[in-house]
Formats: sequence, C-alpha cells, structure tokens
Amino acid sequence: MNMDYKAAGVDIDAGNEVVRRIKGLAKATATTGVLSDLGSFGGLFHIGARGLTDPVLVASADGVGTKLRVAFMSGIHGTIGMDLVNHCVNDILVQGAEPLFFLDYLATGRLDPDVAVQIVDGLARACRENGCALLGGETAEMPGFYADGEYDVAGFIVGAVERAKLIDGRGIAAGDVLVGVPSSGLHTNGYSLARSIIFDRQKLSVHDRVEDLGMTVAEALLAPHRSYLPVVRPLLAGPRPSIKGMAHITGGGITDNLPRVLPEGTEALVRLGSWETPPLFRWLQQAGGVPLDDMLRTFNMGIGLILVVAPADAEPVLHALAAAGEPRAVRIGEITAGSGQVRYS
Amino acid sequence: MNMDYKAAGVDIDAGNEVVRRIKGLAKATATTGVLSDLGSFGGLFHIGARGLTDPVLVASADGVGTKLRVAFMSGIHGTIGMDLVNHCVNDILVQGAEPLFFLDYLATGRLDPDVAVQIVDGLARACRENGCALLGGETAEMPGFYADGEYDVAGFIVGAVERAKLIDGRGIAAGDVLVGVPSSGLHTNGYSLARSIIFDRQKLSVHDRVEDLGMTVAEALLAPHRSYLPVVRPLLAGPRPSIKGMAHITGGGITDNLPRVLPEGTEALVRLGSWETPPLFRWLQQAGGVPLDDMLRTFNMGIGLILVVAPADAEPVLHALAAAGEPRAVRIGEITAGSGQVRYS
Repeated sequence: MNMDYKAAGVDIDAGNEVVRRIKGLAKATATTGVLSDLGSFGGLFHIGARGLTDPVLVASADGVGTKLRVAFMSGIHGTIGMDLVNHCVNDILVQGAEPLFFLDYLATGRLDPDVAVQIVDGLARACRENGCALLGGETAEMPGFYADGEYDVAGFIVGAVERAKLIDGRGIAAGDVLVGVPSSGLHTNGYSLARSIIFDRQKLSVHDRVEDLGMTVAEALLAPHRSYLPVVRPLLAGPRPSIKGMAHITGGGITDNLPRVLPEGTEALVRLGSWETPPLFRWLQQAGGVPLDDMLRTFNMGIGLILVVAPADAEPVLHALAAAGEPRAVRIGEITAGSGQVRYS
Repeated sequence: MNMDYKAAGVDIDAGNEVVRRIKGLAKATATTGVLSDLGSFGGLFHIGARGLTDPVLVASADGVGTKLRVAFMSGIHGTIGMDLVNHCVNDILVQGAEPLFFLDYLATGRLDPDVAVQIVDGLARACRENGCALLGGETAEMPGFYADGEYDVAGFIVGAVERAKLIDGRGIAAGDVLVGVPSSGLHTNGYSLARSIIFDRQKLSVHDRVEDLGMTVAEALLAPHRSYLPVVRPLLAGPRPSIKGMAHITGGGITDNLPRVLPEGTEALVRLGSWETPPLFRWLQQAGGVPLDDMLRTFNMGIGLILVVAPADAEPVLHALAAAGEPRAVRIGEITAGSGQVRYS
C-alpha cells in the first residue's frame, strides 16, 4: 500500500475549499487600511491610513475555553466566533484601543467544511460589528488531536490608541468610583464549573428547559459574549478620556481581574448588593452548592466590565453609557487605600 | 459535596504560577517599542519608536501541527516554541517584514507548569534570536479537551515593512530566477504522513536510531524549523529590495506555496535535480512508498524558502546569502509564461 497525505488523515482539498469560502467572508470585513486578500502569507494593514498621530498598538490573544463543549453538544457553532472576537475586542478596549484587525487559529481533528464556515461566519459578523478587519488565520487539520466533531479556536487582535489617550489605571486613587457594566451571560469563563454543575451534578441535557431561567441550557450557556466597544467608544472621544482604568471581567472573575489595573497602595471595595446578580449565576450557585468566594473568582456574576472614574465623572459616565445604549450600568463600589486586592461588602 | 473551580478541573493557582514564571522569560525579549509587562489585558507596542516612515503591518497566525505529537512521544518540549516563532517570522518575512511582536495561545487539558515553562522558554529564546518581543499570550486549561500530557499551541506575529519596500510578487516576469534556500528538516509540515510512515508502517519508536539518517527518529523529526530572517535581512536593506517575491514552503509544499506569489500569466518551472534532496525525505519516500507528486505537495523536500529575482540579480543574491551565512542556496528553476502552476522537470 502506498501512502499519501489524505490516507494519513489530512485533506488538503477540503482545507482549500474552506479557504475559498472563508475568503469571501473575510473580504466583507475589510476596513480602511487593509491591503491584502486572505491567502497572502501575511495579512497587510497600512496603519498610516488610519490618521493616528502617535499610535500605540495593543494586542491580545484569547480562546473561548470549554464553552466550545456546549457548542459541540448542541451543534450550534455560529456564535463561537462572536464570543472570540468580542472577548478580544474587550481585552484591548480596556486600554482605550479601537480594534484594527483580527486573526484566528482553528484546529480540528478532521475538518468539517460546513462547521468551519459556520465558525468563521460568526467571526466575520462580529468583526464587521466591531469595525475590525478579519485579516487572516490558520486552519489546521490535526488527526488524532481532537475528537470527531471537536475543535479548538483562538483569536488574536491588534488595535490602536493614541499614546496620549492610553488608559492604564495609573491615575487611579482612593475615592474613585467603580462603574459596573452588565454582562450578557457567562461570557467565555467558568464553563468547566458550569458544565460540571449542569451536566454531571444536575444530569440535565443541553436541550432541557430550566424553569428558573425561562430558557434551555443551550440558550443560557451559549449567550454570546458581548462587545463593550459600542457603549464605551463615545467615552474615548475627546482630547482625554474620563476613564482612569477599565477591567474586563474574564477568567478569575472580579477578584482576579480588577487588581490588574490597580496601582500600588490602592484596593477596590465592591458592594455585592449594588447590582442584581442575574438568575443564571444564582441558579448555578445553588445547584452546585458553590461557595460565594469561588463564584466571585470563577464567574463575572453579571458584571462584565468595570470602569474606574473620578467621583465627579461618575454621573457623566453613567449618562454617556445610557446615551450609547447601556442604561443598566451602575456604581458597584469605590477605590480605597490598600494592598491591591478586591474586598467585597 | 460543594463544588469549586479546582474540583471542576481548572487550577487558577497553577495558571498564576505559570504566568509568574513566564513573565520573566517574556521580559527578556523586550525590544524598542514595548510598553507593557505581561499581565496587562493587552500588550502595548509603540510603533513610532521604530522610526518607520510609512509602515505596513504584516500579521500571521500559525500552529505547529502534529509535530507536537513527536514532542509528546519524546518528552522534548523545548524546541516547539522555536518551530512556532520561526514559522511565523518566515511567513511575514516573505513580504519583506521584520518582526515586531509575537503572542502565543497555549491550550492544555491539565496544565503542567514545567512543560508550559519549557514551551514558553523556547518561544522566548526564538523571539530574542529574531529581535521580536514576546508581548503576551493566553494559557488555557481546558479539562477534557486534550489528553493528559498533550496540548496545542498557536502563534501570532506582527511585523512591519516600509510601504515602498513591500514584497508582493507583482513584478515577477518570465525569465526570473528561482533561488532555493535549504530547510533544516521537515520544519512544521507533513508530520501526519511522516508519523504514519515511521510509527504505523515501519513500527519504529521515537528513540530508535535510523541508520540511513545517522540519528534517532526524535532527532530527525524534532529538528527546529529555521528562521530565514538572519540570512535574508541584508537583502532587505537599501532603498529597494532586489527580491521580487518570496515563498515560505509550508503545508502543501512547493506545489501549493510558490503559486501564492505568482502574478497572472506566469508559472514556475522547478528543476528537481538542482538541489540534493536531504536523506530524511528520500528515506520517508522509500519507507512509505509515497508517489513523488504527493511528496512535493506534502514536504518541503529540502527547500524551505524560495526567492524570485531578476536574472541579473541571481548571482548577487546568492553571494549576499552566502555572506550572511547561507552558502548552500542554489538556483532551482525559473519563471515562464503560464497559468499560475508549478511544473517540475
């Protein structure tokens, strides 16, 4: 028996077919600055076309984590791309950056062109919504690495911010106010614990309806990670943003993420009663018997983004968020002197 | 029984421990322009610090493919990072770009801090060698996604080239010369086929010595993907590069990669006898009974980079490559009129 690459489990033709279909999706995301079609070795972006005076590039890499398993279980792959892009967009937004371009890495055991196209269609849609070009990516077929029907996907984003408008938390001081902006669900964190509770402990299936939530497990768990760019963008305009620091609440919850922007000598006091914890988190806590500390270090608990602002800016910032379409942002605490931790009250 | 995140298979403390150790490795890669330590939400790079007049950003995403399985089998994880970085460096080098920064995505089932640090140490070393900053990354623990001791890793690179010096193959015309630069082994492609031949058909183990190669299977298969930046960099200096186009020979071999830089109306004639196919490829072909066409569409066959230059530039380019430390580059063919394909003679 002679061997070729297809016999070894890799189908270059299927890969090329996916690339052809992806090209059209990516092309529709092109923005000012994009110079290349997908298929060049590298994607090309002409930074000068954006008219920035002294740009700082802000870059981030992310995955979707085990939220993917809910996509596998339900056969719904169209929102994973939104999760990935929006997660990345938020990770650079917290430093004041607008996205320029995004690249993806999609790895499978055996490539199903339809699933791959569903995923990239979601990526492309989210890229368009964020004004971000899908500049390229890698689709890898790795026989034996991933079970049939499974895959992993990672995203890479590059954005830019004027150097003078970089948000880095440096000016944060005792007395500053924490403004919390609601999440749209679990976003992309805490899925290993959520799945343990729902599938192992509660023995539910992905299509079961949860009365406490008024929806199915799949609907609750696959709610897309929202992008905060549309509601925060107006606050970044003008000569200097009124936001001193921002934290995207991802893996590690408020407990681990808010300290990432706190300067030495400060800490954050978060008032747990100041926002309504959404039903999904309350149900998970109860169904899993999870201690509150672990909830707060695992899930976003209904707050996906925290802005730190001077006391005088709190009301104007809340108004600006409301005017941009987010009336549910609330004060959730303040900065005090301390040793870099988050305390809850 | 109450549940927490650790019981669900995710160890945030192990992750934080890895992040602490990685920070030091990444810090040592900092170059002019880097503004952030690892641990900010996004990595910061001040493009203005590089003194470019009208930069085009060139970005690429890549993985290592099933070469990883050889790392798992042999327990050698220190060179995977070099494979990944060098692959990415080459993918943007072919458009004339010097690397600015790199980010990684590392996904495991259960995080082994020592293995993670070995991998990132390799990444950091290769970043330093290429003058590229390791600006950030994501380490994801995904229980149940990867078998114990297994992981996947993806890389994302951003480089820059002056717009006037972008290399895009547009000027390639009939009569131009193909200069081939040797590979250092399989690089990161063809591993599914190579592993089928070696482990399934030949029943060899990763530590077996292959007499035809004078080394063990692990040594042959884990030879790091080389970076072509050191030998090509001198050719990119000056007002305009003499290189019209470059192809990095990755998945799909010369057959699928060289056409990516050919303008309409041209094709490439590659003379198979013009370079010596290294023993590894000859042994794989014979041991697997692989047809030559499949070899050429799967492996780099000893040529990892192809430069397309005007006939008058061929000798000067070969001399420049030799002066930069690569005396083994050779003419491997030429451009003719045609329909975008590679023909072999």
